[in-house]
Amino acid sequence: MSAELDLPEVVAEVRAAFEEYENALVNNDVAVLDRLFWEDSRVVRYGAGENLYGYDQIQAFRAARPGNNLARTLHNTRITTHGRDLATVWTEFTRPGNSRTGRQSQVWARRPEGWRVVAAHVSFMDEG
Amino acid sequence: MSAELDLPEVVAEVRAAFEEYENALVNNDVAVLDRLFWEDSRVVRYGAGENLYGYDQIQAFRAARPGNNLARTLHNTRITTHGRDLATVWTEFTRPGNSRTGRQSQVWARRPEGWRVVAAHVSFMDEG
Repeated sequence: MSAELDLPEVVAEVRAAFEEYENALVNNDVAVLDRLFWEDSRVVRYGAGENLYGYDQIQAFRAARPGNNLARTLHNTRITTHGRDLATVWTEFTRPGNSRTGRQSQVWARRPEGWRVVAAHVSFMDEG
Repeated sequence: MSAELDLPEVVAEVRAAFEEYENALVNNDVAVLDRLFWEDSRVVRYGAGENLYGYDQIQAFRAARPGNNLARTLHNTRITTHGRDLATVWTEFTRPGNSRTGRQSQVWARRPEGWRVVAAHVSFMDEG
């Protein structure tokens, strides 16, 4: 057995959750960002400059983050769903006035409380 | 419905696949690395200095990569399984003589051909 890929209704659900997250991110809507991360000690978020383990560390990071200069443009967004409960969303991004290429990876899982980010990794590509 | 987490036999399978991959990586065993990535146009691998889309780009990168100085030590490895067919493996790593903190994220899926990396992201943390 392996999971069915890219069932259209599952892709649509994940896309909606991802867009809600992205909109919250650029507007620094911390309540929505907190809600969309898995409230569990196992969640991991590697940021550009920090490695966060468990929901409490992620929530503390959000609360302390300056809420400006968060605008960005996404490129090459790839959503792939595996079965009905898991998805990967890998996307590049750029910020205005910054030449570096950002990358954001999220694993979304359907939990009893809804779709949640269960693991994430954000980085800037090293310049060649 | 949401997936059952961390079923011990599934964790054991994923750990074995991850260890096979890690061993192949530090020994630059390209045949094993190629086998363990999902042979599909949807696979994505963000590396420290490149963004690769589809199996062919990943395979070409492997073939061209110098096979030395690949030794590394893992830290804070986190394996979480969702149901029987999906897992996240997030790990930090350091290389001898390099003070930078590396991070490697892999999503593993049970495909008909076996456990495969379906999405990956490798980066070095920005220094604060």
